[in-house]
Amino acid sequence: MFIRQRWYVAALAAELSDRPIGRTILGEHVAMYRNHAGAVVALRDTCPHRGYPLSLGRVVGEHLVCGYHGFTFDAGGSCVSVPGQDRIPSRLHVRTYPLVELGAWAFIWMGAGEPDYARLPDAPWLEASEERAVIAGVAAIDANFGLLVDNLLDLSHETFLHSGSIGTPEVAETPIEVEVDEAARRVEVYRHMTGVVCPPFYANTTGLEGLVDRWQDIEYHPPAFYQLNSRLAPTGRPPLPDGSDDHAFHMKIFYGLTPATERTVWDFWALSRDFAVEDRTVDDFLAKMQAGVVQEDVDALTVLQARLDEGNETTEVSIKIDRGGLAARRILDDMAREELAASS
Amino acid sequence: MFIRQRWYVAALAAELSDRPIGRTILGEHVAMYRNHAGAVVALRDTCPHRGYPLSLGRVVGEHLVCGYHGFTFDAGGSCVSVPGQDRIPSRLHVRTYPLVELGAWAFIWMGAGEPDYARLPDAPWLEASEERAVIAGVAAIDANFGLLVDNLLDLSHETFLHSGSIGTPEVAETPIEVEVDEAARRVEVYRHMTGVVCPPFYANTTGLEGLVDRWQDIEYHPPAFYQLNSRLAPTGRPPLPDGSDDHAFHMKIFYGLTPATERTVWDFWALSRDFAVEDRTVDDFLAKMQAGVVQEDVDALTVLQARLDEGNETTEVSIKIDRGGLAARRILDDMAREELAASS
Amino acid sequence: MFIRQRWYVAALAAELSDRPIGRTILGEHVAMYRNHAGAVVALRDTCPHRGYPLSLGRVVGEHLVCGYHGFTFDAGGSCVSVPGQDRIPSRLHVRTYPLVELGAWAFIWMGAGEPDYARLPDAPWLEASEERAVIAGVAAIDANFGLLVDNLLDLSHETFLHSGSIGTPEVAETPIEVEVDEAARRVEVYRHMTGVVCPPFYANTTGLEGLVDRWQDIEYHPPAFYQLNSRLAPTGRPPLPDGSDDHAFHMKIFYGLTPATERTVWDFWALSRDFAVEDRTVDDFLAKMQAGVVQEDVDALTVLQARLDEGNETTEVSIKIDRGGLAARRILDDMAREELAASS
Repeated sequence: MFIRQRWYVAALAAELSDRPIGRTILGEHVAMYRNHAGAVVALRDTCPHRGYPLSLGRVVGEHLVCGYHGFTFDAGGSCVSVPGQDRIPSRLHVRTYPLVELGAWAFIWMGAGEPDYARLPDAPWLEASEERAVIAGVAAIDANFGLLVDNLLDLSHETFLHSGSIGTPEVAETPIEVEVDEAARRVEVYRHMTGVVCPPFYANTTGLEGLVDRWQDIEYHPPAFYQLNSRLAPTGRPPLPDGSDDHAFHMKIFYGLTPATERTVWDFWALSRDFAVEDRTVDDFLAKMQAGVVQEDVDALTVLQARLDEGNETTEVSIKIDRGGLAARRILDDMAREELAASS
Repeated sequence: MFIRQRWYVAALAAELSDRPIGRTILGEHVAMYRNHAGAVVALRDTCPHRGYPLSLGRVVGEHLVCGYHGFTFDAGGSCVSVPGQDRIPSRLHVRTYPLVELGAWAFIWMGAGEPDYARLPDAPWLEASEERAVIAGVAAIDANFGLLVDNLLDLSHETFLHSGSIGTPEVAETPIEVEVDEAARRVEVYRHMTGVVCPPFYANTTGLEGLVDRWQDIEYHPPAFYQLNSRLAPTGRPPLPDGSDDHAFHMKIFYGLTPATERTVWDFWALSRDFAVEDRTVDDFLAKMQAGVVQEDVDALTVLQARLDEGNETTEVSIKIDRGGLAARRILDDMAREELAASS
Repeated sequence: MFIRQRWYVAALAAELSDRPIGRTILGEHVAMYRNHAGAVVALRDTCPHRGYPLSLGRVVGEHLVCGYHGFTFDAGGSCVSVPGQDRIPSRLHVRTYPLVELGAWAFIWMGAGEPDYARLPDAPWLEASEERAVIAGVAAIDANFGLLVDNLLDLSHETFLHSGSIGTPEVAETPIEVEVDEAARRVEVYRHMTGVVCPPFYANTTGLEGLVDRWQDIEYHPPAFYQLNSRLAPTGRPPLPDGSDDHAFHMKIFYGLTPATERTVWDFWALSRDFAVEDRTVDDFLAKMQAGVVQEDVDALTVLQARLDEGNETTEVSIKIDRGGLAARRILDDMAREELAASS
């Protein structure tokens, strides 16, 4: 049971071109491409003729041509050409999906009815500008959506699973604050580390030395959108009363959690920063670091899913660090129940 | 439910030697070899002692010796030796299958009762001679038999799936004629392209230049035997009234469609031509081209089978190009029903 | 249904270090390591917090630290530290298993209640000494426990499956003697080859030339412990009446048969010899030979399991060489029945 009436990240903007891609999202096969006019298109990745994936075809102008027998579809999903005859049966139509680019990512609406554009995330940092540099990527994980939610809502794992990269002892040692807004469907987890040694990857990219204050403030908007607001500043220098915070370094670490199937998930990520904006070597350094971090998560979650696949009973013991994840589960359950009620 | 009372291609003649091979055919494990006298033998690929595949054993003279404990069988399936004792239990017998070589291929009878030799295909072109050169190969496809039937009965896919090799625009553009002989259990599909540019692979091998007439005449004898009669001639020069056609180039493209299991199939092929008969470079050119074409089919059908494996409902929309394949399905259904009725 | 109230080989002694290993034994995930004091520890390979395998963590002194969130356990399975708080919930406890080193191997007790130390095998040859050299290894086999029992209890397969290494014609030709002690739960299989050509691998390692007497005396203690007593001597020189046998060369080939799951098994082996004890080149020669022999068994049993996985009906025809294996099956059935009765 997927939560469908929400936007999910479907692709990196950079993945959309005149070479179509195929991706399974909420159990459905979706083909995506960018046509000659630059518009992005998502449609069911199944030719109605004999079921061949349209993503294996070619984009010709505004059209997508099936790679098996050449059935050709426009951006609205209508068939405009078939081989060997002029008449086109009306049943040759393919479902399309609303697809919206927001900076580094494209969001898809897999739900019923008209898309609810008000539910698109408000995330200007996803878009690169003179003040912000953005890098992005995606990983396929052989693990279910819930395991990724657990992972991202409890960052104490950084200290152990990511000990070789972003993890420092203080992350696990520092207690968290959790705020849950059931009405707004939002979970926030705050971890403020004060007077700690600057982690190497931040020292490298910011030039900071000595003791720093490091904040990790998670905003999770279930099911699909996660934003980690990271703040780094010389210790003892909080934001000013007027909210300005120019002496600090900020990074937003975005995750798009998109179920592929009931037991697999797409792990989209984007890193947006307000420092070293023009510095491509910092882009490269962060991209490499993040790819390593994501791979550590992929490996761990794959192992956990393999255990689940065995079908044995499992038990959990939760402690304080798990409060964010447990709140997220409650909201996800509520949302699923709500959709089920609405659809019956 | 396989159609059993028919001959299927089981092996290339060149595969049969004193090194046994094992192959799954209609869901049964079959071991095949050629004994010291040159006779080809097919028997159940399971030693009755502990179930080890006999195809992993060795041919010693007229006998096949199991590679696990040395139980030894003659060409009739009788056990003639066991380790550690002289007495041989009578239950140590292995089922054999009639196996007949016809030129490049060996056909097997997996049915009940005596084999019906009248049902062997009449295909002299399978055999190389002074007038004909034959090359042959086989591919395993992770896709069911029906997907391969669909593929071969509708050649408009050449234009798209094989666009880099044998496909030209005219194949998809040219309408087909279909003839179905329900009584003889035969489907014929004709596609005559007139005044078209000679496709590169034919120009290379025939030396023809300029416009040609290209005929693709399919004869499908369900379930297992498919013959594509290809004719290429300078445009406007049909066969003479007496049937002679010496100014044309002919190639027969044979396919043997042999179900391995309910969801996998063997794709045997053979190319027999009446031109450049002595030219080994043409053999090599065609073998490489055909291997590429077959691989494109393998890739496409594997994708389609993966979709079927998901178990979702599928729908099809058929057009005129599908008439041959739809007729083939009807005949295959009739044959299956007939066998079921006969066996109950 | 596993037989649980017995010791099984869980690891090579050489595998146990401060880098934990994970291994599935009788369907359970087990983590094993050697702590800073040299003691070997086995515990359930599942962190009670979120189920991550503890074998992916790190040994820190006497403790094992989970690699996901740092939950830390002592050798008794008690949690001694969690991130972000001081209080440790009492449910954070992990089951431990008795683990005993006997020379080259470590044995585990997966049963209920107190371990029965009297059931540990009496096998001093597992331990290297001035008089004995021991080499050991382990292979994972994609085949069930019963197929490995069959394999080891009937050595006539050496002549065929291992024809390129340890197999000689005499092994299959020589009839066996079988003794079964139902009360002691022991199967013995004797094969005494008299006046045979010394097999090359023994000629290489002993220096013997000409005709020899070669004895292969199996003692199988179901379910888990198998010992092949191999004796090689110049022909016509049996052990002296007082039992001394200094003119012969002895090797004990041990196998530990440890079910991983219902359809997979660990194949532990150890070779202990009383000749060329100091000669490391003989170690290397035998290790390489044995690895090859084990791989041949792995390949054969994997093929047999693949056939079983197809779920088709199977039949067997047994002859005299199978008496040891059939006796072993009877005892294994008895033991399983006995445990079932005791547990209900």
